Amino acid sequence: MSLLIVGSVALDNVATPFDKVENALGGSAVYISLSASYFSGPVHIVGVVGDDFPQNYITMLESHDVNCDGLQIIPGGKTFRWAGKYHYDLNTRDTLLTELNVFEKFDPIIPDTLKKSKYICLGNIDPTLQLKVLDQIDNPRFVVCDTMNYWIEGKKDELVKVFKRIDVLIINDSEARLLAHEPNLIKAAKAIRDMGVPALIIKKGEHGALLFTEDTIFSAPAYPLEIIHDPTGAGDSFAGGFVGYLHKCQDTSPECLKRAVVYGSTMASFCVEQFSTKGLEGLSNLRIQDRFREFLTISRFNEEE
Amino acid sequence: MSLLIVGSVALDNVATPFDKVENALGGSAVYISLSASYFSGPVHIVGVVGDDFPQNYITMLESHDVNCDGLQIIPGGKTFRWAGKYHYDLNTRDTLLTELNVFEKFDPIIPDTLKKSKYICLGNIDPTLQLKVLDQIDNPRFVVCDTMNYWIEGKKDELVKVFKRIDVLIINDSEARLLAHEPNLIKAAKAIRDMGVPALIIKKGEHGALLFTEDTIFSAPAYPLEIIHDPTGAGDSFAGGFVGYLHKCQDTSPECLKRAVVYGSTMASFCVEQFSTKGLEGLSNLRIQDRFREFLTISRFNEEE
Repeated sequence: MSLLIVGSVALDNVATPFDKVENALGGSAVYISLSASYFSGPVHIVGVVGDDFPQNYITMLESHDVNCDGLQIIPGGKTFRWAGKYHYDLNTRDTLLTELNVFEKFDPIIPDTLKKSKYICLGNIDPTLQLKVLDQIDNPRFVVCDTMNYWIEGKKDELVKVFKRIDVLIINDSEARLLAHEPNLIKAAKAIRDMGVPALIIKKGEHGALLFTEDTIFSAPAYPLEIIHDPTGAGDSFAGGFVGYLHKCQDTSPECLKRAVVYGSTMASFCVEQFSTKGLEGLSNLRIQDRFREFLTISRFNEEE
Repeated sequence: MSLLIVGSVALDNVATPFDKVENALGGSAVYISLSASYFSGPVHIVGVVGDDFPQNYITMLESHDVNCDGLQIIPGGKTFRWAGKYHYDLNTRDTLLTELNVFEKFDPIIPDTLKKSKYICLGNIDPTLQLKVLDQIDNPRFVVCDTMNYWIEGKKDELVKVFKRIDVLIINDSEARLLAHEPNLIKAAKAIRDMGVPALIIKKGEHGALLFTEDTIFSAPAYPLEIIHDPTGAGDSFAGGFVGYLHKCQDTSPECLKRAVVYGSTMASFCVEQFSTKGLEGLSNLRIQDRFREFLTISRFNEEE
């Protein structure tokens, strides 16, 4: 029962008020797969790069049990490039450059060996492509989907078609408000679930995350990070920890979904501690478990005896 | 062991995009005391009003076991008046009117019978007056203090003097950032505790609240409210539930502080469901307990067995 991840693979230039990196490894499929790999390797990615994509990045991914057989390498093509600059509070950023390059014509062809994948994570790509991925999968058991403002504003009809074929939608609070045209997040969540989404996760950055299912609202705390080096990839790392944990458990009960949200938050907290994917490289299960337990500690209270 | 609450008593005109009220009961001492009264009546307020203050408001407070013997009524004086208008998202508001009236010369005289009060809640008033209150109290056991941007910007030195004499400071996230000149809330909390505050609560509205003590960070969820009628008084209701519960328990251990934060959040959630103090009037212990348990339900997750 494979875990399949489809999304972007990119080379990023990222600047914060404190430091910067150039030609760093990035892209949704990269963050999701690295994060998920700690729970249930091998994970399989489908994406596209140019032949300018450094081999050592592929080597690093493979060393984390990320299978790159589905990564298309376009001869003579250039890899998707993104450049961004974060503001002082690290909550807002300016996009300085978006060069789609080979990603502009990305055709997500699922290798035959992955067409029976049971757990699918659709990174933030054109909903038309997300539908095309799902069309190639034979009876998936559990589909997790990300999206962004750009598709909510430009391709809402296609997005709603995607919603009817997924199990969990993961978006952030501003995306939820935009999607539902509703400032109250609880009402917005209800409206989004009414669009056909069985379970919805709303990420709130430094304020944690909310999970909405048919009968449950679950509020996960954020990890109390004092130092954030690079927020890039936090949302994708969340999605990776979430789906990786569920794939490992082969259990999608409400209790398991809650733990998966906390594992997602755990992986996002590691991600932002370093630039690019560095915070997700070379983690140990012990460190992940320890941090998961810290989430328990900071959120636990009891009724009087 | 009395619970003493010092703060403003006001007549408010409040408008939201959906409704409005005029000459409604308001003020920090009012919301704090009503909220606290459910845990440990009688609670005692010290404040000031003019003789225009409606007797039925005093009757309502007294019916909730709020003792108004320390409420100064200035003959010929006019009660403090505030008018505000909330924006569409109910998170931001414009102050339309602030008439201090008798509150401008408020001299918080603590009646002799209350000078041995052990639990004190200092509502959001001039830190010079907060100090004056503390000077009159004989060896308080537990002091909770609120403040606001206005005093942080204008009277920081006096405020820091207050900090050294209190047990818990309750402020919101923007006040914490302003006070510490630091956008990261976890760092801001550390800086504020370094000013001499033993325990700090940062309220984050729809995102819950954080409690910082020497050894603990506790993250409390927000109650998932779909409909908010009037956010006025939410912070004071929080403070009232917090200090009222602690006063009831006569226990200020970390576990008890955590529960108190959730009781504070519980009372704030009732407050915003109706205009003015209506959401805090006529509550039952059963409703309060039920809502407290809902906070448990939405925040609880477990490690795998």
